[in-house]
Amino acid sequence: MGFQITVVGLGLMGASMAQALRGFQNARIAGMDADEPVRRTALAQDMVDCCYAEITEAVKDADLILFCVYARHIPELLRQCLPVVKQGALLSDICGVKTPLYQEILPMIPKGAGYIGIHPMAGRERDGIEHADAGLYAGSSLLICPTNATRPEHITLMKELAGYLSCARAEVVAYQKHDEIIAYTSDLMHIAAAGLCVRYHPDMSLAFAAGAFRDCTRIADINETAWTELLLENRENVSHSLEQYIKSLNEMNHAICANDSRTLQSLLKQAGDHKREMLKR
Amino acid sequence: MGFQITVVGLGLMGASMAQALRGFQNARIAGMDADEPVRRTALAQDMVDCCYAEITEAVKDADLILFCVYARHIPELLRQCLPVVKQGALLSDICGVKTPLYQEILPMIPKGAGYIGIHPMAGRERDGIEHADAGLYAGSSLLICPTNATRPEHITLMKELAGYLSCARAEVVAYQKHDEIIAYTSDLMHIAAAGLCVRYHPDMSLAFAAGAFRDCTRIADINETAWTELLLENRENVSHSLEQYIKSLNEMNHAICANDSRTLQSLLKQAGDHKREMLKR
Repeated sequence: MGFQITVVGLGLMGASMAQALRGFQNARIAGMDADEPVRRTALAQDMVDCCYAEITEAVKDADLILFCVYARHIPELLRQCLPVVKQGALLSDICGVKTPLYQEILPMIPKGAGYIGIHPMAGRERDGIEHADAGLYAGSSLLICPTNATRPEHITLMKELAGYLSCARAEVVAYQKHDEIIAYTSDLMHIAAAGLCVRYHPDMSLAFAAGAFRDCTRIADINETAWTELLLENRENVSHSLEQYIKSLNEMNHAICANDSRTLQSLLKQAGDHKREMLKR
Repeated sequence: MGFQITVVGLGLMGASMAQALRGFQNARIAGMDADEPVRRTALAQDMVDCCYAEITEAVKDADLILFCVYARHIPELLRQCLPVVKQGALLSDICGVKTPLYQEILPMIPKGAGYIGIHPMAGRERDGIEHADAGLYAGSSLLICPTNATRPEHITLMKELAGYLSCARAEVVAYQKHDEIIAYTSDLMHIAAAGLCVRYHPDMSLAFAAGAFRDCTRIADINETAWTELLLENRENVSHSLEQYIKSLNEMNHAICANDSRTLQSLLKQAGDHKREMLKR
Protein backbone atom coordinates (compact mmCIF):
# COMPACT_ATOMS: atom_id res chain seq x y z
CA MET A 1 0.00 0.00 0.00
CA GLY A 2 1.32 3.44 -0.95
CA PHE A 3 0.88 6.77 0.83
CA GLN A 4 -2.73 7.86 1.48
CA ILE A 5 -3.93 11.38 2.18
CA THR A 6 -7.44 11.86 3.55
CA VAL A 7 -9.03 15.27 3.23
CA VAL A 8 -11.84 15.66 5.75
CA GLY A 9 -14.42 18.22 4.56
CA LEU A 10 -14.76 18.98 0.85
CA GLY A 11 -15.75 22.65 0.93
CA LEU A 12 -13.85 25.26 -1.05
CA MET A 13 -10.61 24.75 0.88
CA GLY A 14 -10.74 20.96 1.18
CA ALA A 15 -11.83 20.21 -2.37
CA SER A 16 -9.22 22.64 -3.74
CA MET A 17 -6.62 20.95 -1.53
CA ALA A 18 -7.60 17.47 -2.75
CA GLN A 19 -7.29 18.62 -6.38
CA ALA A 20 -4.02 20.44 -5.79
CA LEU A 21 -2.51 17.43 -4.00
CA ARG A 22 -3.21 15.07 -6.93
CA GLY A 23 0.10 13.30 -7.56
CA PHE A 24 1.84 14.51 -4.34
CA GLN A 25 4.03 11.65 -3.06
CA ASN A 26 2.12 9.42 -5.50
CA ALA A 27 -0.56 9.39 -2.82
CA ARG A 28 -4.02 7.95 -3.03
CA ILE A 29 -6.36 10.87 -2.24
CA ALA A 30 -9.39 10.02 -0.12
CA GLY A 31 -12.17 12.47 0.71
CA MET A 32 -14.71 12.56 3.50
CA ASP A 33 -17.83 14.68 3.54
CA ALA A 34 -21.18 14.20 5.25
CA ASP A 35 -23.02 15.63 2.25
CA GLU A 36 -23.93 13.14 -0.47
CA PRO A 37 -24.09 15.58 -3.44
CA VAL A 38 -20.66 16.91 -2.41
CA ARG A 39 -19.22 13.38 -2.45
CA ARG A 40 -20.78 12.77 -5.85
CA THR A 41 -19.24 15.99 -7.26
CA ALA A 42 -15.82 15.14 -5.82
CA LEU A 43 -15.86 11.71 -7.47
CA ALA A 44 -17.43 12.87 -10.74
CA GLN A 45 -14.81 15.61 -11.12
CA ASP A 46 -12.03 13.22 -10.16
CA MET A 47 -10.97 15.40 -7.24
CA VAL A 48 -10.44 12.28 -5.10
CA ASP A 49 -9.77 8.59 -5.68
CA CYS A 50 -12.41 7.54 -3.20
CA CYS A 51 -14.90 9.27 -0.96
CA TYR A 52 -16.54 8.37 2.32
CA ALA A 53 -19.45 9.47 4.47
CA GLU A 54 -17.98 7.85 7.57
CA ILE A 55 -14.92 9.39 9.20
CA THR A 56 -13.62 6.03 10.45
CA GLU A 57 -13.73 4.54 6.95
CA ALA A 58 -12.05 7.61 5.51
CA VAL A 59 -9.08 7.73 7.87
CA LYS A 60 -8.26 4.11 8.70
CA ASP A 61 -5.67 3.72 5.92
CA ALA A 62 -4.49 7.33 5.89
CA ASP A 63 -0.88 8.43 6.42
CA LEU A 64 -1.83 12.11 6.39
CA ILE A 65 -5.24 13.30 7.60
CA LEU A 66 -6.05 16.90 6.82
CA PHE A 67 -9.05 18.48 8.56
CA CYS A 68 -10.54 21.13 6.26
CA VAL A 69 -13.57 21.93 8.42
CA TYR A 70 -14.48 24.63 10.95
CA ALA A 71 -12.34 24.39 14.09
CA ARG A 72 -15.38 23.69 16.27
CA HIS A 73 -16.03 20.38 14.43
CA ILE A 74 -12.50 19.03 14.80
CA PRO A 75 -12.50 17.72 18.41
CA GLU A 76 -15.57 15.52 17.83
CA LEU A 77 -14.24 14.22 14.48
CA LEU A 78 -10.94 13.43 16.18
CA ARG A 79 -12.68 11.52 18.99
CA GLN A 80 -14.43 9.42 16.35
CA CYS A 81 -11.40 8.69 14.23
CA LEU A 82 -8.54 8.31 16.71
CA PRO A 83 -9.41 4.68 17.60
CA VAL A 84 -8.81 3.60 13.98
CA VAL A 85 -5.94 5.93 12.98
CA LYS A 86 -2.81 4.05 11.85
CA GLN A 87 0.34 4.00 13.96
CA GLY A 88 2.60 6.81 12.70
CA ALA A 89 -0.12 8.75 10.90
CA LEU A 90 0.17 12.53 10.74
CA LEU A 91 -2.84 14.69 11.60
CA SER A 92 -3.26 18.26 10.45
CA ASP A 93 -5.79 21.07 10.07
CA ILE A 94 -6.01 24.25 8.01
CA CYS A 95 -7.71 26.49 10.60
CA GLY A 96 -6.87 30.19 10.81
CA VAL A 97 -6.61 30.22 14.64
CA LYS A 98 -4.54 27.57 16.35
CA THR A 99 -4.24 28.12 20.13
CA PRO A 100 -7.76 27.23 21.34
CA LEU A 101 -7.91 24.29 18.93
CA TYR A 102 -4.49 22.96 19.94
CA GLN A 103 -5.29 23.36 23.63
CA GLU A 104 -8.33 21.17 23.19
CA ILE A 105 -6.98 18.51 20.84
CA LEU A 106 -3.27 18.07 21.60
CA PRO A 107 -4.00 16.16 24.81
CA MET A 108 -6.13 13.76 22.72
CA ILE A 109 -3.39 12.86 20.21
CA PRO A 110 -1.82 9.46 21.00
CA LYS A 111 1.96 9.03 21.15
CA GLY A 112 1.94 7.03 17.91
CA ALA A 113 0.43 9.83 15.85
CA GLY A 114 1.85 13.22 14.93
CA TYR A 115 0.19 16.60 14.75
CA ILE A 116 1.14 19.68 12.72
CA GLY A 117 -1.41 22.31 11.71
CA ILE A 118 -1.05 24.45 8.63
CA HIS A 119 -2.66 27.74 7.65
CA PRO A 120 -2.85 28.38 3.93
CA MET A 121 -3.16 32.15 3.41
CA ALA A 122 -5.59 31.76 0.54
CA GLY A 123 -9.34 31.83 0.01
CA ARG A 124 -12.15 33.01 -2.16
CA GLU A 125 -15.18 35.18 -1.49
CA ARG A 126 -17.47 32.18 -2.10
CA ASP A 127 -17.42 28.86 -0.32
CA GLY A 128 -18.39 25.39 -1.53
CA ILE A 129 -17.01 22.57 -3.68
CA GLU A 130 -18.47 24.25 -6.79
CA HIS A 131 -15.83 27.00 -6.42
CA ALA A 132 -12.96 24.57 -5.85
CA ASP A 133 -9.82 25.40 -7.77
CA ALA A 134 -6.62 23.37 -8.01
CA GLY A 135 -4.72 26.67 -8.24
CA LEU A 136 -6.22 28.20 -5.09
CA TYR A 137 -2.99 27.89 -3.07
CA ALA A 138 -0.52 28.77 -5.81
CA GLY A 139 1.42 31.93 -5.00
CA SER A 140 0.08 32.19 -1.45
CA SER A 141 1.84 31.56 1.88
CA LEU A 142 1.65 28.39 3.88
CA LEU A 143 2.15 28.85 7.61
CA ILE A 144 3.27 25.66 9.34
CA CYS A 145 2.52 25.40 13.07
CA PRO A 146 4.26 22.52 14.82
CA THR A 147 3.73 21.47 18.43
CA ASN A 148 6.44 20.63 20.94
CA ALA A 149 6.03 16.98 19.91
CA THR A 150 6.22 17.50 16.13
CA ARG A 151 8.98 15.47 14.51
CA PRO A 152 11.35 17.19 12.03
CA GLU A 153 10.31 14.89 9.15
CA HIS A 154 6.73 16.13 9.52
CA ILE A 155 7.88 19.72 9.15
CA THR A 156 9.81 18.63 6.06
CA LEU A 157 6.72 16.89 4.66
CA MET A 158 4.65 20.05 5.08
CA LYS A 159 7.32 22.14 3.38
CA GLU A 160 7.24 19.68 0.47
CA LEU A 161 3.47 19.94 0.44
CA ALA A 162 3.78 23.76 0.24
CA GLY A 163 6.16 23.37 -2.68
CA TYR A 164 3.78 20.98 -4.42
CA LEU A 165 0.92 23.50 -3.98
CA SER A 166 3.20 26.14 -5.60
CA CYS A 167 3.01 28.28 -2.46
CA ALA A 168 5.21 31.38 -2.71
CA ARG A 169 6.37 31.04 0.89
CA ALA A 170 6.31 28.41 3.63
CA GLU A 171 7.01 29.63 7.14
CA VAL A 172 7.33 27.58 10.30
CA VAL A 173 5.99 29.44 13.33
CA ALA A 174 4.99 28.47 16.87
CA TYR A 175 1.19 28.31 17.05
CA GLN A 176 0.85 30.94 19.79
CA LYS A 177 3.00 33.36 17.78
CA HIS A 178 0.99 32.51 14.65
CA ASP A 179 -2.22 33.64 16.34
CA GLU A 180 -0.61 36.87 17.57
CA ILE A 181 0.70 37.87 14.16
CA ILE A 182 -2.43 36.85 12.27
CA ALA A 183 -4.44 39.03 14.66
CA TYR A 184 -2.61 41.95 13.06
CA THR A 185 -2.05 40.95 9.42
CA SER A 186 -5.47 39.41 8.83
CA ASP A 187 -8.00 39.83 11.65
CA LEU A 188 -7.34 43.54 12.22
CA MET A 189 -7.49 44.25 8.48
CA HIS A 190 -10.94 42.66 8.26
CA ILE A 191 -12.16 44.62 11.30
CA ALA A 192 -10.75 47.87 9.90
CA ALA A 193 -12.45 47.35 6.53
CA ALA A 194 -15.77 46.32 8.06
CA GLY A 195 -15.62 49.21 10.54
CA LEU A 196 -15.34 51.67 7.65
CA CYS A 197 -18.77 50.52 6.45
CA VAL A 198 -20.64 50.26 9.77
CA ARG A 199 -21.23 54.04 9.61
CA TYR A 200 -20.95 56.04 6.39
CA HIS A 201 -21.90 59.40 4.96
CA PRO A 202 -25.56 59.16 3.88
CA ASP A 203 -24.98 61.25 0.75
CA MET A 204 -21.98 59.33 -0.52
CA SER A 205 -22.09 57.97 -4.03
CA LEU A 206 -19.46 56.23 -6.12
CA ALA A 207 -18.68 59.56 -7.80
CA PHE A 208 -16.92 60.47 -4.53
CA ALA A 209 -15.06 57.18 -4.25
CA ALA A 210 -11.72 56.54 -5.87
CA GLY A 211 -9.09 53.85 -5.34
CA ALA A 212 -8.70 54.60 -1.63
CA PHE A 213 -12.32 53.75 -0.89
CA ARG A 214 -12.28 50.72 -3.17
CA ASP A 215 -9.18 49.16 -1.61
CA CYS A 216 -9.80 50.00 2.04
CA THR A 217 -13.33 48.56 1.95
CA ARG A 218 -12.75 45.69 -0.49
CA ILE A 219 -13.12 43.00 2.18
CA ALA A 220 -15.88 44.74 4.14
CA ASP A 221 -18.59 42.54 2.66
CA ILE A 222 -17.50 39.76 4.95
CA ASN A 223 -18.93 36.31 5.76
CA GLU A 224 -20.16 37.44 9.16
CA THR A 225 -20.72 33.94 10.57
CA ALA A 226 -17.28 32.58 9.72
CA TRP A 227 -15.51 35.79 10.78
CA THR A 228 -17.37 36.13 14.07
CA GLU A 229 -16.13 32.64 14.90
CA LEU A 230 -12.55 33.34 13.77
CA LEU A 231 -12.31 36.68 15.59
CA LEU A 232 -13.75 35.33 18.84
CA GLU A 233 -11.49 32.25 18.78
CA ASN A 234 -8.54 34.62 18.68
CA ARG A 235 -10.16 37.31 20.79
CA GLU A 236 -7.32 38.17 23.17
CA ASN A 237 -4.84 38.77 20.37
CA VAL A 238 -7.45 40.47 18.18
CA SER A 239 -8.54 42.79 20.94
CA HIS A 240 -4.94 43.74 21.70
CA SER A 241 -4.28 44.49 18.06
CA LEU A 242 -7.52 46.43 17.67
CA GLU A 243 -6.81 48.49 20.78
CA GLN A 244 -3.39 49.44 19.42
CA TYR A 245 -5.13 50.54 16.21
CA ILE A 246 -7.75 52.60 18.05
CA LYS A 247 -4.91 54.20 20.01
CA SER A 248 -3.18 55.28 16.79
CA LEU A 249 -6.46 56.63 15.39
CA ASN A 250 -7.13 58.56 18.59
CA GLU A 251 -3.67 60.11 18.39
CA MET A 252 -4.36 61.17 14.83
CA ASN A 253 -7.77 62.52 15.79
CA HIS A 254 -6.33 64.58 18.65
CA ALA A 255 -3.76 66.07 16.30
CA ILE A 256 -6.49 66.88 13.75
CA CYS A 257 -8.80 68.49 16.33
CA ALA A 258 -5.91 70.53 17.73
CA ASN A 259 -4.83 71.58 14.21
CA ASP A 260 -1.45 70.16 15.23
CA SER A 261 0.27 69.66 11.90
CA ARG A 262 3.57 68.62 13.44
CA THR A 263 2.13 65.63 15.32
CA LEU A 264 -0.13 64.63 12.43
CA GLN A 265 2.69 64.79 9.93
CA SER A 266 4.95 62.77 12.21
CA LEU A 267 2.27 60.05 12.60
CA LEU A 268 1.71 59.90 8.83
CA LYS A 269 5.45 59.74 8.22
CA GLN A 270 5.75 56.91 10.75
CA ALA A 271 3.00 55.00 8.93
CA GLY A 272 4.82 55.34 5.61
CA ASP A 273 8.17 54.36 7.13
CA HIS A 274 6.63 51.28 8.78
CA LYS A 275 4.80 50.28 5.61
CA ARG A 276 8.02 50.34 3.61
CA GLU A 277 9.82 48.49 6.40
CA MET A 278 7.13 45.77 6.43
CA LEU A 279 7.32 45.26 2.67
CA LYS A 280 10.98 44.29 3.07
CA ARG A 281 10.32 41.40 5.44
CA MET B 1 -9.21 85.65 -30.77
CA GLY B 2 -10.52 82.17 -29.85
CA PHE B 3 -11.04 80.59 -26.43
CA GLN B 4 -8.00 80.50 -24.15
CA ILE B 5 -7.46 78.21 -21.19
CA THR B 6 -4.66 79.02 -18.74
CA VAL B 7 -3.41 76.26 -16.48
CA VAL B 8 -1.64 77.74 -13.45
CA GLY B 9 0.90 75.29 -12.03
CA LEU B 10 2.36 72.55 -14.21
CA GLY B 11 2.87 69.74 -11.70
CA LEU B 12 1.44 66.27 -12.23
CA MET B 13 -2.17 67.46 -12.14
CA GLY B 14 -1.76 70.71 -14.11
CA ALA B 15 0.50 69.34 -16.83
CA SER B 16 -1.76 66.31 -17.27
CA MET B 17 -4.76 68.66 -17.45
CA ALA B 18 -3.07 70.84 -20.09
CA GLN B 19 -2.31 67.77 -22.20
CA ALA B 20 -5.77 66.28 -21.76
CA LEU B 21 -7.45 69.58 -22.68
CA ARG B 22 -5.59 69.84 -26.02
CA GLY B 23 -8.31 70.51 -28.60
CA PHE B 24 -11.11 71.22 -26.07
CA GLN B 25 -13.28 74.06 -27.48
CA ASN B 26 -10.45 74.62 -29.99
CA ALA B 27 -8.80 76.50 -27.16
CA ARG B 28 -5.33 77.92 -27.04
CA ILE B 29 -3.69 76.31 -23.98
CA ALA B 30 -1.43 78.58 -21.93
CA GLY B 31 0.65 77.39 -19.00
CA MET B 32 2.13 79.24 -16.05
CA ASP B 33 4.82 77.92 -13.76
CA ALA B 34 7.46 79.67 -11.69
CA ASP B 35 10.02 76.98 -12.49
CA GLU B 36 12.01 77.48 -15.68
CA PRO B 37 12.86 73.79 -16.40
CA VAL B 38 9.17 72.95 -15.95
CA ARG B 39 8.21 75.60 -18.52
CA ARG B 40 10.83 74.26 -20.89
CA THR B 41 9.50 70.69 -20.56
CA ALA B 42 5.92 71.83 -21.09
CA LEU B 43 6.85 73.61 -24.32
CA ALA B 44 9.26 70.93 -25.55
CA GLN B 45 6.63 68.22 -25.08
CA ASP B 46 3.94 70.40 -26.68
CA MET B 47 1.77 70.26 -23.55
CA VAL B 48 0.94 73.97 -23.98
CA ASP B 49 0.85 76.50 -26.80
CA CYS B 50 2.65 79.10 -24.71
CA CYS B 51 4.09 79.27 -21.24
CA TYR B 52 4.66 82.13 -18.78
CA ALA B 53 6.59 82.81 -15.61
CA GLU B 54 4.38 85.78 -14.74
CA ILE B 55 0.81 85.17 -13.61
CA THR B 56 -0.46 88.45 -15.08
CA GLU B 57 0.94 87.60 -18.52
CA ALA B 58 -0.50 84.10 -18.33
CA VAL B 59 -4.07 85.07 -17.46
CA LYS B 60 -4.73 88.37 -19.22
CA ASP B 61 -6.22 86.78 -22.36
CA ALA B 62 -7.71 83.72 -20.63
CA ASP B 63 -11.39 82.74 -20.75
CA LEU B 64 -10.86 79.88 -18.31
CA ILE B 65 -8.19 80.00 -15.60
CA LEU B 66 -7.55 76.73 -13.80
CA PHE B 67 -5.46 76.82 -10.63
CA CYS B 68 -3.60 73.50 -10.30
CA VAL B 69 -1.53 74.48 -7.25
CA TYR B 70 -1.77 73.87 -3.48
CA ALA B 71 -4.78 75.68 -2.00
CA ARG B 72 -2.56 77.87 0.18
CA HIS B 73 -1.00 79.51 -2.89
CA ILE B 74 -4.29 80.43 -4.57
CA PRO B 75 -5.33 83.59 -2.66
CA GLU B 76 -2.01 85.34 -3.39
CA LEU B 77 -2.03 84.28 -7.05
CA LEU B 78 -5.60 85.56 -7.33
CA ARG B 79 -4.66 88.92 -5.80
CA GLN B 80 -1.95 89.27 -8.42
CA CYS B 81 -4.03 88.27 -11.42
CA LEU B 82 -7.48 89.70 -10.73
CA PRO B 83 -6.59 93.25 -11.91
CA VAL B 84 -5.86 91.93 -15.44
CA VAL B 85 -8.47 89.15 -15.73
CA LYS B 86 -10.88 89.66 -18.66
CA GLN B 87 -14.50 90.59 -18.12
CA GLY B 88 -16.51 87.33 -18.15
CA ALA B 89 -13.57 85.02 -17.47
CA LEU B 90 -14.21 81.86 -15.46
CA LEU B 91 -11.88 80.94 -12.60
CA SER B 92 -11.49 77.46 -11.21
CA ASP B 93 -9.30 75.27 -9.03
CA ILE B 94 -8.76 71.52 -8.61
CA CYS B 95 -8.24 71.43 -4.82
CA GLY B 96 -9.49 68.51 -2.76
CA VAL B 97 -10.98 70.69 0.02
CA LYS B 98 -13.21 73.59 -0.94
CA THR B 99 -14.77 75.35 2.07
CA PRO B 100 -11.76 77.15 3.58
CA LEU B 101 -10.51 78.12 0.12
CA TYR B 102 -13.91 79.39 -1.01
CA GLN B 103 -14.39 81.34 2.22
CA GLU B 104 -11.15 83.15 1.57
CA ILE B 105 -11.37 83.75 -2.16
CA LEU B 106 -15.05 84.15 -3.06
CA PRO B 107 -15.20 87.67 -1.58
CA MET B 108 -12.27 88.60 -3.83
CA ILE B 109 -13.93 87.55 -7.12
CA PRO B 110 -15.29 90.58 -9.03
CA LYS B 111 -18.86 90.61 -10.38
CA GLY B 112 -17.57 90.31 -13.93
CA ALA B 113 -15.80 86.99 -13.34
CA GLY B 114 -17.21 83.57 -12.50
CA TYR B 115 -15.95 80.91 -10.12
CA ILE B 116 -16.52 77.17 -10.11
CA GLY B 117 -14.09 74.75 -8.50
CA ILE B 118 -13.64 71.18 -9.63
CA HIS B 119 -12.16 68.13 -7.89
CA PRO B 120 -10.84 65.45 -10.22
CA MET B 121 -10.80 62.16 -8.29
CA ALA B 122 -7.54 61.07 -9.87
CA GLY B 123 -3.87 61.12 -9.03
CA ARG B 124 -0.66 59.20 -9.04
CA GLU B 125 1.77 58.22 -6.32
CA ARG B 126 4.44 60.51 -7.80
CA ASP B 127 4.17 64.22 -8.44
CA GLY B 128 5.86 66.40 -11.06
CA ILE B 129 5.54 67.26 -14.74
CA GLU B 130 7.74 64.26 -15.59
CA HIS B 131 4.86 61.97 -14.56
CA ALA B 132 2.22 63.94 -16.49
CA ASP B 133 -0.19 61.79 -18.43
CA ALA B 134 -2.92 62.93 -20.83
CA GLY B 135 -4.97 59.92 -19.69
CA LEU B 136 -4.74 60.71 -15.96
CA TYR B 137 -8.38 61.78 -15.66
CA ALA B 138 -9.92 59.17 -17.99
CA GLY B 139 -12.33 56.89 -16.15
CA SER B 140 -12.27 58.92 -12.93
CA SER B 141 -14.94 61.17 -11.38
CA LEU B 142 -15.05 64.93 -11.71
CA LEU B 143 -16.79 66.68 -8.83
CA ILE B 144 -18.06 70.13 -9.78
CA CYS B 145 -18.54 72.61 -6.94
CA PRO B 146 -20.44 75.77 -7.91
CA THR B 147 -20.98 78.79 -5.66
CA ASN B 148 -24.27 80.65 -5.18
CA ALA B 149 -23.17 83.00 -7.95
CA THR B 150 -22.17 80.35 -10.50
CA ARG B 151 -24.04 80.73 -13.81
CA PRO B 152 -25.63 77.62 -15.39
CA GLU B 153 -23.48 77.90 -18.53
CA HIS B 154 -20.38 77.54 -16.38
CA ILE B 155 -21.70 74.28 -14.91
CA THR B 156 -22.40 73.13 -18.47
CA LEU B 157 -18.86 74.05 -19.53
CA MET B 158 -17.39 72.00 -16.69
CA LYS B 159 -19.57 69.01 -17.58
CA GLU B 160 -18.30 69.29 -21.16
CA LEU B 161 -14.76 69.47 -19.83
CA ALA B 162 -15.40 66.27 -17.83
CA GLY B 163 -16.65 64.59 -21.00
CA TYR B 164 -13.60 65.77 -22.91
CA LEU B 165 -11.33 64.33 -20.19
CA SER B 166 -13.23 60.99 -20.58
CA CYS B 167 -14.27 61.12 -16.91
CA ALA B 168 -16.59 58.25 -16.00
CA ARG B 169 -18.81 60.51 -13.88
CA ALA B 170 -19.35 64.24 -13.39
CA GLU B 171 -21.30 65.23 -10.30
CA VAL B 172 -22.39 68.71 -9.25
CA VAL B 173 -22.31 69.15 -5.48
CA ALA B 174 -22.42 72.11 -3.10
CA TYR B 175 -18.91 72.75 -1.85
CA GLN B 176 -19.76 72.32 1.83
CA LYS B 177 -21.38 68.96 1.07
CA HIS B 178 -18.39 68.03 -1.08
CA ASP B 179 -16.06 68.47 1.88
CA GLU B 180 -18.32 66.44 4.17
CA ILE B 181 -18.56 63.47 1.81
CA ILE B 182 -14.88 63.52 0.84
CA ALA B 183 -14.02 63.41 4.55
CA TYR B 184 -15.55 59.93 4.49
CA THR B 185 -14.77 58.51 1.03
CA SER B 186 -11.20 59.78 0.80
CA ASP B 187 -9.79 61.40 3.97
CA LEU B 188 -10.99 58.70 6.37
CA MET B 189 -9.72 55.92 4.07
CA HIS B 190 -6.22 57.45 4.11
CA ILE B 191 -6.29 57.81 7.90
CA ALA B 192 -7.54 54.24 8.33
CA ALA B 193 -4.77 52.85 6.10
CA ALA B 194 -2.04 54.96 7.71
CA GLY B 195 -3.33 54.10 11.20
CA LEU B 196 -2.91 50.38 10.42
CA CYS B 197 0.83 50.98 10.00
CA VAL B 198 1.53 53.34 12.89
CA ARG B 199 1.72 50.31 15.20
CA TYR B 200 2.29 46.76 13.94
CA HIS B 201 3.26 43.34 15.19
CA PRO B 202 7.07 43.32 15.44
CA ASP B 203 7.33 39.72 14.17
CA MET B 204 5.14 40.18 11.11
CA SER B 205 6.53 39.22 7.74
CA LEU B 206 4.95 39.07 4.33
CA ALA B 207 4.39 35.32 4.80
CA PHE B 208 1.58 36.35 7.17
CA ALA B 209 0.10 38.93 4.83
CA ALA B 210 -2.44 38.11 2.16
CA GLY B 211 -4.78 40.27 0.09
CA ALA B 212 -6.44 41.83 3.15
CA PHE B 213 -3.18 43.36 4.37
CA ARG B 214 -2.14 44.41 0.87
CA ASP B 215 -5.38 46.23 0.08
CA CYS B 216 -6.08 47.78 3.49
CA THR B 217 -2.59 49.27 3.72
CA ARG B 218 -2.02 50.05 0.03
CA ILE B 219 -2.25 53.83 0.54
CA ALA B 220 -0.48 53.90 3.92
CA ASP B 221 2.79 55.07 2.40
CA ILE B 222 1.33 58.52 2.09
CA ASN B 223 2.80 61.91 1.11
CA GLU B 224 2.72 63.16 4.68
CA THR B 225 3.17 66.85 3.82
CA ALA B 226 0.36 67.06 1.27
CA TRP B 227 -1.99 64.93 3.36
CA THR B 228 -1.37 66.81 6.60
CA GLU B 229 -2.42 69.95 4.74
CA LEU B 230 -5.49 68.34 3.15
CA LEU B 231 -6.66 66.71 6.39
CA LEU B 232 -6.23 69.87 8.46
CA GLU B 233 -7.99 72.04 5.88
CA ASN B 234 -11.00 69.76 6.24
CA ARG B 235 -10.46 69.04 9.91
CA GLU B 236 -14.00 69.44 11.25
CA ASN B 237 -15.46 67.03 8.72
CA VAL B 238 -12.49 64.68 8.96
CA SER B 239 -12.64 64.57 12.73
CA HIS B 240 -16.38 63.87 12.67
CA SER B 241 -15.89 61.04 10.21
CA LEU B 242 -12.93 59.63 12.16
CA GLU B 243 -14.85 59.75 15.45
CA GLN B 244 -17.71 57.80 13.88
CA TYR B 245 -15.16 55.22 12.73
CA ILE B 246 -13.54 54.96 16.17
CA LYS B 247 -17.03 54.53 17.64
CA SER B 248 -17.71 51.55 15.32
CA LEU B 249 -14.33 50.03 16.17
CA ASN B 250 -14.95 50.46 19.90
CA GLU B 251 -18.31 48.70 19.53
CA MET B 252 -16.61 45.82 17.76
CA ASN B 253 -13.88 45.70 20.40
CA HIS B 254 -16.40 45.59 23.24
CA ALA B 255 -18.21 42.72 21.55
CA ILE B 256 -14.92 40.87 21.05
CA CYS B 257 -13.76 41.39 24.66
CA ALA B 258 -17.16 40.25 25.96
CA ASN B 259 -17.12 37.21 23.63
CA ASP B 260 -20.49 38.54 22.44
CA SER B 261 -20.95 36.78 19.12
CA ARG B 262 -24.44 38.16 18.55
CA THR B 263 -23.37 41.81 18.64
CA LEU B 264 -20.19 41.18 16.67
CA GLN B 265 -22.02 39.24 13.99
CA SER B 266 -24.67 41.94 13.74
CA LEU B 267 -21.99 44.65 13.29
CA LEU B 268 -20.21 42.60 10.61
CA LYS B 269 -23.51 41.94 8.84
CA GLN B 270 -24.31 45.68 8.94
CA ALA B 271 -20.92 46.43 7.37
CA GLY B 272 -21.58 43.99 4.52
CA ASP B 273 -25.11 45.30 3.96
CA HIS B 274 -23.85 48.89 3.85
CA LYS B 275 -21.00 48.04 1.52
CA ARG B 276 -23.37 46.44 -0.98
CA GLU B 277 -25.77 49.38 -0.60
CA MET B 278 -22.94 51.87 -1.30
CA LEU B 279 -21.84 50.02 -4.44
CA LYS B 280 -25.29 50.62 -5.92
CA ARG B 281 -25.14 54.40 -5.66
